[in-house]
Amino acid sequence: MYDLIIIGGGPAAMSAAIYAVRYRLKTLVLASVLGGAILEAHDVQNYPGFKNISGMDIMKNMEEQVRFQGAEIKLEQAENIMHDGNVFRINSKHESKAVLLAVGTKRRKLNIPGEVEYIGKGVSYCATCDAAFFRDKVVGVVGGSNSAAMAAQLLSEHSKKVYVIYRKSHMRAEPARVESLENNPKVDFIYNTNVMEVKGSKFMEKVILDNEHDGSRELALDGLFIEVGSVPSITLAKLLGIELDENKLIKVDPGQRTNIKRIYAAGDITTGSNKFRQVVTAVSEGAIAAHSVYTDLKE
Amino acid sequence: MYDLIIIGGGPAAMSAAIYAVRYRLKTLVLASVLGGAILEAHDVQNYPGFKNISGMDIMKNMEEQVRFQGAEIKLEQAENIMHDGNVFRINSKHESKAVLLAVGTKRRKLNIPGEVEYIGKGVSYCATCDAAFFRDKVVGVVGGSNSAAMAAQLLSEHSKKVYVIYRKSHMRAEPARVESLENNPKVDFIYNTNVMEVKGSKFMEKVILDNEHDGSRELALDGLFIEVGSVPSITLAKLLGIELDENKLIKVDPGQRTNIKRIYAAGDITTGSNKFRQVVTAVSEGAIAAHSVYTDLKE
Repeated sequence: MYDLIIIGGGPAAMSAAIYAVRYRLKTLVLASVLGGAILEAHDVQNYPGFKNISGMDIMKNMEEQVRFQGAEIKLEQAENIMHDGNVFRINSKHESKAVLLAVGTKRRKLNIPGEVEYIGKGVSYCATCDAAFFRDKVVGVVGGSNSAAMAAQLLSEHSKKVYVIYRKSHMRAEPARVESLENNPKVDFIYNTNVMEVKGSKFMEKVILDNEHDGSRELALDGLFIEVGSVPSITLAKLLGIELDENKLIKVDPGQRTNIKRIYAAGDITTGSNKFRQVVTAVSEGAIAAHSVYTDLKE
Repeated sequence: MYDLIIIGGGPAAMSAAIYAVRYRLKTLVLASVLGGAILEAHDVQNYPGFKNISGMDIMKNMEEQVRFQGAEIKLEQAENIMHDGNVFRINSKHESKAVLLAVGTKRRKLNIPGEVEYIGKGVSYCATCDAAFFRDKVVGVVGGSNSAAMAAQLLSEHSKKVYVIYRKSHMRAEPARVESLENNPKVDFIYNTNVMEVKGSKFMEKVILDNEHDGSRELALDGLFIEVGSVPSITLAKLLGIELDENKLIKVDPGQRTNIKRIYAAGDITTGSNKFRQVVTAVSEGAIAAHSVYTDLKE
């Protein structure tokens, strides 16, 4: 019987595990993979303490720290949770007195013809994972967020040309990132435009746009990186009857408690930290949640 | 004219500066010293990303990162702030459109006879700074908090004997820390006891307790480390008419805004992060505050 089972393997989960173990709570981290959205960030410059570091290295450091502090980690997907008011039972075998959901978000798709067909054949949702496969190729990035800007930046270091395709008239990424892209001769912006279809033969060869670019609605591309945001992973939350807000984020109180006793939530899946979603807010929420678990279980 | 002046030099201030500059806000950090309460922590194991690191090294990293990102830092105490609703003027010379208070807390004194007299002659408020001066000596630590436990731990690595003197029946520090001290043969606990006076000649020689220990109210000590908490630094907040809670912490909304337009607050001085005061919550609040400043100034 654990005191706390943490579901998820990103920064919120790792921070919660570090704090929980230091409160001497018997703690299990249950995750299908260690690392969340942060794994896709190749150059993090805004996590205080590291001038620059890759998301993968942040996660490696955190995993080492969690193991050093003495939390257990099992690489296993949490499929179901039963509870009788006192004991939680996950995947019909792991028992705990409290559960922390730190399950993050999943990548949003464009839902256009050809998108799924060409996944791994040009279409990708992870520049960090796949950029190196596009050396000297021409690629597109769909989206206007920080993630889109970071993907374009990284791709420009490999590819010969990067088109940023965005439905609005300017990117909503951090100004520092946008400026850097604007000064990058390899990067061009196609604004006010949507990608309607991905076409090719064995591999993707082009996309169809809803507006003309250089006199054509066809744009030849070897790769298309789709960075149009993410959706909360709420399967377990729904199963448990946890209250969500209008954006399907888990509602939490200032102590990261959900509406159900002994169930807590932290990180991108929650309404915490003024809905600002950063590594720095995730680790804070994880720590606060662990403190609440410790306080509540002592009572 | 700056967009943002950050008053304070601890983790909340540094994080806010990193984020603000990345939002392309012209940012000045104004602090009498870089580093807050964290400087006194010699072994931080709960800041995710670092298995263990000293508070001084965390601050060095953050300072380097802030300078690399391009924020200005001036080592200057903010003595006064004037504002006319649009422009803030600090120390009658630095002007900005917004101000972030990240001024942290100050050490609490015992207010007993001999305490001030023997500061630097045995009495200290900073084990990290002074532990090494007490090699093979006998020292006391007053307090039951994490800070007290950390001070006792560090002192045990230098001194030959450490007494932890606490008014309650058990320490309120993290269980992991208490356990480690209980297993430390150099550390003894004197519970349910207050220190009433510090006595000596040129240097302190003993303390007077309000209960007998080993048959005497006198305890011979070469050093006394006072770790009885801290009080918010609210001089500026009072000057500005900022709303405080019953513990004299600055009330903030989820975006770290105070009740006064364009004045924000982050870190130990605030009611944010469920009043959980850690490096990890301070950096989160700093980032959230910078995001609010950016959003508010754009309007």
